[in-house]
Amino acid sequence: MFTVFRGGQSGAWRVTRLAPVKGASLARTPALSSVYSASIALPILPSLTSWRLAGVASHVRYTERAEKNQLIEAQAPLGRPDATCAALIPIKKSAAWWELTQEERRQIFEDRSNHIAGSLKYLPAIARQLYHCRDLGEPFDFLTWFEFVPAHADAFEELVAMLRATEEWNYVEREVDIRVERERLDAG
Amino acid sequence: MFTVFRGGQSGAWRVTRLAPVKGASLARTPALSSVYSASIALPILPSLTSWRLAGVASHVRYTERAEKNQLIEAQAPLGRPDATCAALIPIKKSAAWWELTQEERRQIFEDRSNHIAGSLKYLPAIARQLYHCRDLGEPFDFLTWFEFVPAHADAFEELVAMLRATEEWNYVEREVDIRVERERLDAG
Repeated sequence: MFTVFRGGQSGAWRVTRLAPVKGASLARTPALSSVYSASIALPILPSLTSWRLAGVASHVRYTERAEKNQLIEAQAPLGRPDATCAALIPIKKSAAWWELTQEERRQIFEDRSNHIAGSLKYLPAIARQLYHCRDLGEPFDFLTWFEFVPAHADAFEELVAMLRATEEWNYVEREVDIRVERERLDAG
Repeated sequence: MFTVFRGGQSGAWRVTRLAPVKGASLARTPALSSVYSASIALPILPSLTSWRLAGVASHVRYTERAEKNQLIEAQAPLGRPDATCAALIPIKKSAAWWELTQEERRQIFEDRSNHIAGSLKYLPAIARQLYHCRDLGEPFDFLTWFEFVPAHADAFEELVAMLRATEEWNYVEREVDIRVERERLDAG
């Protein structure tokens, strides 16, 4: 199953900010929605005023066993009723990154950039799901979706600033930062 | 770009054998073709007497730098005029495999199964291209395409037998072995 994010005129999330961090932006739309889909192709095609990005929640690529166990223990699920703030951050890494071998990427990703260890302290406050899309022929390589309560907005800024300052981020050639909000979900 | 293999009534390759190794087979078709496509969805849908499998030639997942350099130096390209024998071997690995972490999979793949080191001695005789499809929602996880001259048919049998005897292959839950042939390509 694919997860398809769609920026458009309507959707569950209200877009509060959409800005390019590096490279070309996406069209600013008033709303964002996400759906599960058995197919990447959607009946509604992107237009000048909307866009769609598809990805797949896949197996882990860099996380080692001890880290995976720590993450599973610490992480929160998506969809918490109070998590009314979210962010969608699509990124594309450079050809130089993808020409590296697995252990070279792992060295940059974790040994030198502390991507996993550095992110762990933001769990479970920031719920997170990574979607892979490089092999789908999509314009980005990854879509990361984050959810948090408004009180953790500063922690989230700290997390993204920490990641953007890493050696790993030198290999990011396109990044868009999309912030969204919704009403609190009724528990009932 | 995706590579789409199609079993059907016509195609560049004549199917000489199509047999399940593990799990369900594919329909036996007289011919096999492959095309590059910007989209996974093809205008011609699979029928009871044909099938299509799509994959993407992606970055390496387990190969380390020294191995990658050895492979690049040793390997032959696809499409050699004399390489009139080929095989398409789609495989699907189990959920247990995909729940392993990267370093656990690498340990099984290379440290204990010698997938790379064991295959190296068959280069450049056997030309090989791996296509990834697990994240595409396809029925298999990988499609591997091999090309060789008829005189190397025995070496190819040895290679697939060696791989199927490894610990890694315990995680293969579906495998189909499709052998094809074509006329020698004119050099001119």
